[in-house]
Amino acid sequence: MILPARELLEYYRGPASDIYFQRAHATLAGEGLDPVVAMEYFPDRPGVLCGINQVLDLLKDALGAGAEVWALGEGERMDAKEVVLRVRARYSEFGVLETATLGIMASCSGWATRAGEVVAAAAGTRVISFGARHVHPLVGPVMEYAAVVGGCSGCATPLGAQLAGLPAPSGTMPHAMILIFGDTVAAGEAFDRHMAPDVLRIVLVDTFKDEVEESLRVAAAMQDRLRGVRLDTPWERGRVTVELVKEVRARLDLAGHPKVGIFVSGGMNIERVRQFVEAKAPVDSFGVGMEIASAPPIGFTADIKEVDGQPRTKRGRIPGLADNPRLSRVI
Amino acid sequence: MILPARELLEYYRGPASDIYFQRAHATLAGEGLDPVVAMEYFPDRPGVLCGINQVLDLLKDALGAGAEVWALGEGERMDAKEVVLRVRARYSEFGVLETATLGIMASCSGWATRAGEVVAAAAGTRVISFGARHVHPLVGPVMEYAAVVGGCSGCATPLGAQLAGLPAPSGTMPHAMILIFGDTVAAGEAFDRHMAPDVLRIVLVDTFKDEVEESLRVAAAMQDRLRGVRLDTPWERGRVTVELVKEVRARLDLAGHPKVGIFVSGGMNIERVRQFVEAKAPVDSFGVGMEIASAPPIGFTADIKEVDGQPRTKRGRIPGLADNPRLSRVI
Amino acid sequence: MILPARELLEYYRGPASDIYFQRAHATLAGEGLDPVVAMEYFPDRPGVLCGINQVLDLLKDALGAGAEVWALGEGERMDAKEVVLRVRARYSEFGVLETATLGIMASCSGWATRAGEVVAAAAGTRVISFGARHVHPLVGPVMEYAAVVGGCSGCATPLGAQLAGLPAPSGTMPHAMILIFGDTVAAGEAFDRHMAPDVLRIVLVDTFKDEVEESLRVAAAMQDRLRGVRLDTPWERGRVTVELVKEVRARLDLAGHPKVGIFVSGGMNIERVRQFVEAKAPVDSFGVGMEIASAPPIGFTADIKEVDGQPRTKRGRIPGLADNPRLSRVI
Amino acid sequence: MILPARELLEYYRGPASDIYFQRAHATLAGEGLDPVVAMEYFPDRPGVLCGINQVLDLLKDALGAGAEVWALGEGERMDAKEVVLRVRARYSEFGVLETATLGIMASCSGWATRAGEVVAAAAGTRVISFGARHVHPLVGPVMEYAAVVGGCSGCATPLGAQLAGLPAPSGTMPHAMILIFGDTVAAGEAFDRHMAPDVLRIVLVDTFKDEVEESLRVAAAMQDRLRGVRLDTPWERGRVTVELVKEVRARLDLAGHPKVGIFVSGGMNIERVRQFVEAKAPVDSFGVGMEIASAPPIGFTADIKEVDGQPRTKRGRIPGLADNPRLSRVI
Amino acid sequence: MILPARELLEYYRGPASDIYFQRAHATLAGEGLDPVVAMEYFPDRPGVLCGINQVLDLLKDALGAGAEVWALGEGERMDAKEVVLRVRARYSEFGVLETATLGIMASCSGWATRAGEVVAAAAGTRVISFGARHVHPLVGPVMEYAAVVGGCSGCATPLGAQLAGLPAPSGTMPHAMILIFGDTVAAGEAFDRHMAPDVLRIVLVDTFKDEVEESLRVAAAMQDRLRGVRLDTPWERGRVTVELVKEVRARLDLAGHPKVGIFVSGGMNIERVRQFVEAKAPVDSFGVGMEIASAPPIGFTADIKEVDGQPRTKRGRIPGLADNPRLSRVI
Amino acid sequence: MILPARELLEYYRGPASDIYFQRAHATLAGEGLDPVVAMEYFPDRPGVLCGINQVLDLLKDALGAGAEVWALGEGERMDAKEVVLRVRARYSEFGVLETATLGIMASCSGWATRAGEVVAAAAGTRVISFGARHVHPLVGPVMEYAAVVGGCSGCATPLGAQLAGLPAPSGTMPHAMILIFGDTVAAGEAFDRHMAPDVLRIVLVDTFKDEVEESLRVAAAMQDRLRGVRLDTPWERGRVTVELVKEVRARLDLAGHPKVGIFVSGGMNIERVRQFVEAKAPVDSFGVGMEIASAPPIGFTADIKEVDGQPRTKRGRIPGLADNPRLSRVI
Repeated sequence: MILPARELLEYYRGPASDIYFQRAHATLAGEGLDPVVAMEYFPDRPGVLCGINQVLDLLKDALGAGAEVWALGEGERMDAKEVVLRVRARYSEFGVLETATLGIMASCSGWATRAGEVVAAAAGTRVISFGARHVHPLVGPVMEYAAVVGGCSGCATPLGAQLAGLPAPSGTMPHAMILIFGDTVAAGEAFDRHMAPDVLRIVLVDTFKDEVEESLRVAAAMQDRLRGVRLDTPWERGRVTVELVKEVRARLDLAGHPKVGIFVSGGMNIERVRQFVEAKAPVDSFGVGMEIASAPPIGFTADIKEVDGQPRTKRGRIPGLADNPRLSRVI
Repeated sequence: MILPARELLEYYRGPASDIYFQRAHATLAGEGLDPVVAMEYFPDRPGVLCGINQVLDLLKDALGAGAEVWALGEGERMDAKEVVLRVRARYSEFGVLETATLGIMASCSGWATRAGEVVAAAAGTRVISFGARHVHPLVGPVMEYAAVVGGCSGCATPLGAQLAGLPAPSGTMPHAMILIFGDTVAAGEAFDRHMAPDVLRIVLVDTFKDEVEESLRVAAAMQDRLRGVRLDTPWERGRVTVELVKEVRARLDLAGHPKVGIFVSGGMNIERVRQFVEAKAPVDSFGVGMEIASAPPIGFTADIKEVDGQPRTKRGRIPGLADNPRLSRVI
Repeated sequence: MILPARELLEYYRGPASDIYFQRAHATLAGEGLDPVVAMEYFPDRPGVLCGINQVLDLLKDALGAGAEVWALGEGERMDAKEVVLRVRARYSEFGVLETATLGIMASCSGWATRAGEVVAAAAGTRVISFGARHVHPLVGPVMEYAAVVGGCSGCATPLGAQLAGLPAPSGTMPHAMILIFGDTVAAGEAFDRHMAPDVLRIVLVDTFKDEVEESLRVAAAMQDRLRGVRLDTPWERGRVTVELVKEVRARLDLAGHPKVGIFVSGGMNIERVRQFVEAKAPVDSFGVGMEIASAPPIGFTADIKEVDGQPRTKRGRIPGLADNPRLSRVI
Repeated sequence: MILPARELLEYYRGPASDIYFQRAHATLAGEGLDPVVAMEYFPDRPGVLCGINQVLDLLKDALGAGAEVWALGEGERMDAKEVVLRVRARYSEFGVLETATLGIMASCSGWATRAGEVVAAAAGTRVISFGARHVHPLVGPVMEYAAVVGGCSGCATPLGAQLAGLPAPSGTMPHAMILIFGDTVAAGEAFDRHMAPDVLRIVLVDTFKDEVEESLRVAAAMQDRLRGVRLDTPWERGRVTVELVKEVRARLDLAGHPKVGIFVSGGMNIERVRQFVEAKAPVDSFGVGMEIASAPPIGFTADIKEVDGQPRTKRGRIPGLADNPRLSRVI
Repeated sequence: MILPARELLEYYRGPASDIYFQRAHATLAGEGLDPVVAMEYFPDRPGVLCGINQVLDLLKDALGAGAEVWALGEGERMDAKEVVLRVRARYSEFGVLETATLGIMASCSGWATRAGEVVAAAAGTRVISFGARHVHPLVGPVMEYAAVVGGCSGCATPLGAQLAGLPAPSGTMPHAMILIFGDTVAAGEAFDRHMAPDVLRIVLVDTFKDEVEESLRVAAAMQDRLRGVRLDTPWERGRVTVELVKEVRARLDLAGHPKVGIFVSGGMNIERVRQFVEAKAPVDSFGVGMEIASAPPIGFTADIKEVDGQPRTKRGRIPGLADNPRLSRVI
Repeated sequence: MILPARELLEYYRGPASDIYFQRAHATLAGEGLDPVVAMEYFPDRPGVLCGINQVLDLLKDALGAGAEVWALGEGERMDAKEVVLRVRARYSEFGVLETATLGIMASCSGWATRAGEVVAAAAGTRVISFGARHVHPLVGPVMEYAAVVGGCSGCATPLGAQLAGLPAPSGTMPHAMILIFGDTVAAGEAFDRHMAPDVLRIVLVDTFKDEVEESLRVAAAMQDRLRGVRLDTPWERGRVTVELVKEVRARLDLAGHPKVGIFVSGGMNIERVRQFVEAKAPVDSFGVGMEIASAPPIGFTADIKEVDGQPRTKRGRIPGLADNPRLSRVI
């Protein structure tokens, strides 16, 4: 990712770890205590597990010989309270990684779960993650990776796309570029001149003129080179509506441009996506940002369930290993 | 932070930037267009502005001579739609940083705003950020920094404390350590033996026994060396309640330990903090995690308002600079 | 109105009267019964009394010598159950007019009351009645008369304006006319050529192009001859919004047309009017249609309270005349 | 109706028409423009279409040779946005009739739709329209006509009955008549003496005494000549209730009057009708007034969809004719 | 009450006591344990304390020399969790009375609290308890006593009145008596013949005829001997309404009976009483039954707070005596 | 019950009877009127009929020769308004018992109905009535009898158990006893020493220590003599939760005590019982108190329907006997 694995492990063990884990390490070391413990990790609500691969990469680097690890797979559904990861190892090898381990799964599973809900609402229409601008850029690409794990068909940052194994990031053109050109058709034609052939020619059509008029102007100018128009009508103008999409579609068809697609963005959330789908709006893909980016993390808990092979746990939990046949031995 | 400034700038310009800004750059460069533009940044809801310092550090590195920047200060209140940052510069110098700029302010302001609400609810009782485990560790310390900007008195990660300018991170001991010892008193005494003098002796008292009984046992064993007890009762046992706090306080006092403080954690949110404060529960400090960590980002928007000194903007917005006398010229 | 007074009275006594009043007349006549009765009329909810003048015109034609009538004035506020009209006369002279008397006050007071609420919400901005198309044309002008009694500044039909004592009806131009011209500027200029000087030049600007663009085109073409633009954005495009009005205002001002007014119509109801007023949208007048036209009638009841000078009434009512010092003797 | 057809057409074209249609006519005439346009009319919510016959009568008088009209039939169900009328003609022939055309369908369809809902709730029990007193008498009979189109079995005004093709209006006797007699039995017997044989002897029984006692008195006096009793208990006495109806029925039966029917009126709305039906109250017919009379109009819109054979329409609508196979060619 | 004090004490100690208190007694006796304990009693919600006098009577009989008791007074307001009774005595003397002690206060305080709310709603108009028929007759008079403690002016049972220290119970005549007479006037006159002079002549007027008609008949027949009429209209006829009361009042006054009072009963609850008071209905007194009778008991708890002079209590409570300066030493 | 039948009858006829029934008796006697009447009794809402046996016992003592009585059986379901009791006898024999008759059925049916709902929610797990302390002790055992009629498996007072025909009351040990011992294990062992063999050894485990720890200590000390543990965690500690029950079960099983049952009490209501059942908490029985004790009475009404063989009743009711084939002739 952003750092080499070794440096990342050191960062997670030290500057990014809750200090009390480090104090516990010092205390236990002072007393010469280092039992083999079994620790189980579970979420507080159901969702899509994501981040487990990053966690396993960490554990592979951190654990010593003899350690055992069981886990569910990246992108699998998980129930509330279901054990998704179990580590049996000397406590000193992984105890201090609890902050990082839980945090990776918390953020990533939150994003992937919400993305999965959006994708379900889209009922087959493609959903592209556009929300990197709504999270700190240190994790923007991670959020986009999680969105793709949750079901999105594309994302907007190069690193996000790389993490997700996609051939390329997705993107059209920003309002800023059109404003600098001062005319949408001029901007679209320049874009067409300078982009590599594999970049889709999708022109944003709400900057200066009515969306229908602009769509027809752009289509007339670019003809078959135009792959689609993007509607991103601001809320001051009522956002993109089902009716606007239908009208643009009808007017493009009447003007002889049936192959020009319609891409919708701007405040799209689960409810609005569902509304477009139910109204059979002829959308080719949705761009979704804040809805996924603002998904709350899923809280994860790590509980010791055995110490030196004996069932032991804290008040409120059942001692001994939980029974979960879905777990696979991964280390 | 996690990377040197120069590497961070490159990361933000490339792998972490929405691809369409990079495509716009290429198109404009291809046409030889690079006007001076004025761009204004504003949030979609009110809150505490946070992250602006990181943003200004970036802009100082990125902008060329002649650029002008106005901003509100880190930690200031901002209204919905209020311009908090204005940049007037050649577009090529900062256009591609829009993803990073917006994302830094979005996440940080979301966390700081929520933290401010928790701190207000606590009405003077200290609030410590304990939520690093609920966000991806690449931003855990950043979240804690924002929590302190929003009003928290301490945080749990070393890097978080360093970013926030605190002398040290805060922390007691985890359940895992007590479970390994098998007895709370034994764990407390070992902790006392091995920690530096400046580490507060606060013992977690809900692992094996009733909290009242354990508090009295620990206080009897550690006497004046005990600074406090931490209550973190799990939800399976009804979480920490106002009445439990009052009972522990009364029993410690009856047993001659009036100076032993009570630290409350576990699912504390604004509503629960308010309830404890209203019921005058004798709490010395609250540990708050998920409530702050799960704060949704605040959406920020960047709009071009002038191009080459002329008012110009997109449909739905008012051309020309917004009037905000609170802005200060910072570059 | 639509018929001479004498024909109207016959219409109300016969074809438009509930048959059972006619049967009661025949029965009483057959028995030779025709006492002087006092009948009181009251509404079932509070509002603005309207239609009383039409009712008094009828009664003047219908009642014989010795009859007495008390009433509140046209346009006065009335409370629920307040007596607004009292007739003391031989029953044969006015009993059969009960259907017409109640019906006139029911419809007119319903419309006037709702209009009064709209006007109150507009807080000083002019409101024009545009709803004749939403009621049967036999009463369209009557509805508009009632809207003006309730506080509207103008109305759209010639007969409505005449009944209300206004110098002229209000009106701009329909979408149909612009569609036939095929261009808004062409339509506006033709309108200007053919209208008398006292007709305000207000051009509808949402037919073909974005409202802002069209407003600027029209203003550029017509210059000082343009009195205003009308925004009537259809719901498929998000209706007229506060922000659209502010944007049109700002762009007209930037382009040097500060005297061109903005007239808003299209689904304006009390809630939307209030929202525009609270947001200080720079509206010059509102056109309101369905909100007033669909006002439910106010139910009126007529009760005999005395027969031949003795208190008498039906179960559920208090015998004898009600005390209402606001009533004036009008016949 | 109230006026000869020719006078009505002139009234609709002038005094009752929104002035801006007249101004559009003048402008278009001034420019020599009079294309053939196709205009489509549709409602904003579903319901029962009513008034189309009045509209077609107007159009027959107004349109010239070559005009084409398609429509749904009087009383047919219509969907929201479904085209119910299409006119293709020179605009000058019918443009100015838009106010009247829409208004007739708006009011009539609103009343018919609500009446249909009441009739459905009555589940087979007869519903009589009694609400002429709640609307302006210029449209009272029209409202009753629409109520019958919507499903009512009878109505109260002679003209309403005539428009609806009913043999006679329905009606019993008003409280006023009984109050003048001073005794219900005396009033009933006088009614019986003076009415033609085809008038049903239905006596109102709540004026002076308890409804049950009065029903038994009237039945004893009039024996087989009594067709029914009408219950119209005022709200001050709890209105007519299911239990009152059952008690009257039981007491009439006990007293040997099983053929005397029970007619219920007074504040009957859909909810109350449904409640009576569900409770199996032995009601012979319901008199319904305000519930139907206060039905809000259904908003209708007329859109030009073609000009001189070319698809053309305003922003927000789809150009070209809508596809509705339910339409029939009527002119 | 229903049993001599000594028998009542034995009944409470044995057949009516939860068996586990008796088993605790046997166990403690078997071990020779009988410490002096301090037990405190408190309610779970605020209200009017009632039953404490019955409890103190019991304790006086049960406690030995040296026992100490503190209490609030009968009819005093109490807060949630406020100690209302404290007993310091040997446990064997009163432990087994816990069921009775709590139960007496629970039921009585529930009834008195609800009665107080009804009386407050009546705002000065007298409220009579009529609800003995809605509770088991073993406690019917106790309920009525509590209702008077809570503020009622009278009650219906002789024992209730005696317990409450009232000179006599209140009552008019039941429907059954009038039904047997077959005529209300006949029943009223017979009642007048046979009742002692101190019994108020209040006649129930809704059995056979309309309430207004019957009121006038009774007043005409009994003249000055009639003290009042009682309205108890059944719900099938819409219950007593504000309007009915006003109509009866107006008609009695018109007929020259201004001194005949109006007594209202039948489903009167707090909401309905409040509605009558707000509407200024001329009611002389309200009869309230189910509203008071169905008041839920207030839960009381008894906690040991000291054993042999040492603070001791169970988990969840604070050891040692609570501080309540409102308590008075009563034994 | 608490009094011999003859004394009870006199108590019900006099001190506990609404005085107006006694006045009616005196009036009717003064007039020499004593017809045979048929009176029918019905509830105002559905439920479980209870108390009818007590009522029939009273009637058997009160009615003379020739009287006829029909009734539903104790514990049967009854519908709203369904006749559950019909008495045909001289009015003087039973009229004055109306207060007692209605009151017995009101309270008992209220309790039985609520108990039935709790038992249904428990879905097969035993429910024990523990609520005598929440009602006046004069009716505590009656309430428990009704709870058993409604479906409870046991109750806590000796008289309640006797009335219900149970072999013995149910009970464990109160907190007071354990507090006096100062240790739960000591208390449990003493209990075991002094109780008869048929008393179940169930030890309350929440007084001093954590419930799990105390359960394990008690089980270790008493071994096979321990039948169960009772959880009654106070609300200050979060009440008993599903998770606590599961944890106690798991820890007892791990420690080799699978036969020790778990008894749950403390604020158990229908909703909480249902929640435990749905979560499959391993509960052996529920102790339910306030939920049943606070059930509102079911209002009963008695109506005369015949006098001397002729149908007669008051306004609002149908004269003559109701048809209810479920009634059986019982006297």
